[in-house]
Amino acid sequence: MTLVATPLTMHFEAALPLQSGTSIRAYDLSYETYGTLNADRSNAVLICHALNASHHVAGVYLDAAGQPVAKSEGWWDTMIGPGKAVDTDVFFVIGVNNLGSCFGSTGPMQTNPDTGAIYGADFPVVTVEDWVDAQARLLDALGIQTLAAVMGGSLGGMQALSWTLQYPDRVRHAVVVASAPNLTAENIAFNEVARRAIATDPDFNGGHYSRLGVVPKRGLRIARMIGHITYLSDDVMNEKFGRQQTPTLVASPFKYSTQEVEFQIESYLRYQGDKFSEYFDANTYLLITRALDYFDPARAFGGDLTKALATATAQFLLVSFTTDWRFAPARSREIVKALLDNQRDVSYAEIDAPHGHDAFLLDDDRYIGVVRSYFQSKVAL
Amino acid sequence: MTLVATPLTMHFEAALPLQSGTSIRAYDLSYETYGTLNADRSNAVLICHALNASHHVAGVYLDAAGQPVAKSEGWWDTMIGPGKAVDTDVFFVIGVNNLGSCFGSTGPMQTNPDTGAIYGADFPVVTVEDWVDAQARLLDALGIQTLAAVMGGSLGGMQALSWTLQYPDRVRHAVVVASAPNLTAENIAFNEVARRAIATDPDFNGGHYSRLGVVPKRGLRIARMIGHITYLSDDVMNEKFGRQQTPTLVASPFKYSTQEVEFQIESYLRYQGDKFSEYFDANTYLLITRALDYFDPARAFGGDLTKALATATAQFLLVSFTTDWRFAPARSREIVKALLDNQRDVSYAEIDAPHGHDAFLLDDDRYIGVVRSYFQSKVAL
Repeated sequence: MTLVATPLTMHFEAALPLQSGTSIRAYDLSYETYGTLNADRSNAVLICHALNASHHVAGVYLDAAGQPVAKSEGWWDTMIGPGKAVDTDVFFVIGVNNLGSCFGSTGPMQTNPDTGAIYGADFPVVTVEDWVDAQARLLDALGIQTLAAVMGGSLGGMQALSWTLQYPDRVRHAVVVASAPNLTAENIAFNEVARRAIATDPDFNGGHYSRLGVVPKRGLRIARMIGHITYLSDDVMNEKFGRQQTPTLVASPFKYSTQEVEFQIESYLRYQGDKFSEYFDANTYLLITRALDYFDPARAFGGDLTKALATATAQFLLVSFTTDWRFAPARSREIVKALLDNQRDVSYAEIDAPHGHDAFLLDDDRYIGVVRSYFQSKVAL
Repeated sequence: MTLVATPLTMHFEAALPLQSGTSIRAYDLSYETYGTLNADRSNAVLICHALNASHHVAGVYLDAAGQPVAKSEGWWDTMIGPGKAVDTDVFFVIGVNNLGSCFGSTGPMQTNPDTGAIYGADFPVVTVEDWVDAQARLLDALGIQTLAAVMGGSLGGMQALSWTLQYPDRVRHAVVVASAPNLTAENIAFNEVARRAIATDPDFNGGHYSRLGVVPKRGLRIARMIGHITYLSDDVMNEKFGRQQTPTLVASPFKYSTQEVEFQIESYLRYQGDKFSEYFDANTYLLITRALDYFDPARAFGGDLTKALATATAQFLLVSFTTDWRFAPARSREIVKALLDNQRDVSYAEIDAPHGHDAFLLDDDRYIGVVRSYFQSKVAL
């Protein structure tokens, strides 16, 4: 049976204090829910999204005629749904779009109620911790005190981890996939290049491009191309694209051009960049990459992750992928070690997958199987 | 004793036919030589440069007062000089700037003799094979028939390898450092992002920015930042920069800004990008990265590197570095295997160095020692 998704909006009147010292007031959160909350409200699973995702986690949308919209599946539809690893026949699953994003929740593209102008660059810098606070308020509004599980991949995994530290008594299980306790210098570096590409695009206008009716598409394209390279593994890129060339009308082996597309990988990256620049907001890209940079729960403990995680009481499942060089298995193992140092209940699966960081979004039997087993044997009531 | 370098220029009247089918005429090559050519002209060593280097391989320049100019050491001065691994007391070493570069040899910043206008985007696409042909003509002009050795790192190593295929009877030894038989999809991808950053900079003007008195600095900065990330290893970046922050005047742990420099790695990358954009030509960047993309001697042999290298008669030293993820040891091993398949004399050293691709330019005792031994025991007459 097709799981049908319906986007919802929750309005919050009370200002949300932010880590930066400022606050956001009168904000909306877009969210979706799948399955049914049980009588004792104990079967809720919160899904946290990464850079380029939203509250639309599972299921499809219907058009006016009641037919499924093509390619409208949620971003984790392989994982979540009726009878799936995170079974919506058993759990009440919640997807929520984070503040500062561009898919419905209050963000830089929306109007600042204090000024009546579009936020643009004036939208405050938000952190993983801020997002978790906002998510906690959504749960309050939904009448959910305790989550059966909080789950996310990549930046979403950072939110799941942060939940166990900010609201330890509200989380029974945390599922942290392809994530890390903080970003390495190399990851910050890739984020910074993407940000500079956006911020130095002449159409950026200090982040107030919307007021001028323009979009810094050049920068967004470059940012997305860099992203795509880092989401894939060298192996999978060679397998998918290798040195395959695009068709040429000339007899010569190459076009001998620095501007024309010569290799398939160039065509792929340009296409991905163009597509992204049509729908993603540039200020959101800056905000979300900054939230990634800033996340570092061990920072307040002199870099000691074991001390940082001492307050976490949840049970954990961590999953990493061997070819993920952006969030390498070693980073997940740091979290596992810190949890074990604290005598926490932690399961860990390192999946031998060729797909790099992207693997966490893909349909790999062993990966999905591990999550299914965990939810069936540990999370299920 | 200080080795003093003097840049020289050789003018060529005969047109150079290019792989693309066009040609370059009336061109100059900038070059330097160190040491003395022996009586039978058998001790010449040609050094080929990579993306961001020139004919200034070793030694220092002197100012008008005859004093060494600060920081004017050649880019491989750690390797080449009197008593060094490539000993200029024994060998006559030649450094040459490639066509299309921006350090003296004819390139996009110079005047097209056919039109009287600056070449700009009209400079033809040149390949590794074209460069080798041009280098061979320089040797002709210098009266050198056979090289004791040809040597280069990265793209320079591709030229050294190509020498053994294009002019097998003119090369006794090839020293190929941190190189590859072709670029992987991932490497082409990084090149393409850099090229798109340059070509979509509004100041690029289709490559004819010089005529308008502008420089596409935004694109050059992004290109260089991406380059720097890929030249270093994740480990060395963590060691040098980690998550160290830049000074802040506020009491808060972060500046909570997407634009300001927050981490040291951001400051480093921005500085490198700014510096590069002041001196490197954008069209040259496009041309050189394209030459990298195109190099693939096995292409004409259906991808069979063993067949491609069958015509090479030189003896080889290959060197790679364990943390070099741009030109990984596995790529050097492909060359070693293909040479061994052909019963060639090949030495191979895989150096356990933390510095990534940059290691080939650094002063590592084991690396320098291997090259020294090879030149003393194999290349020396």
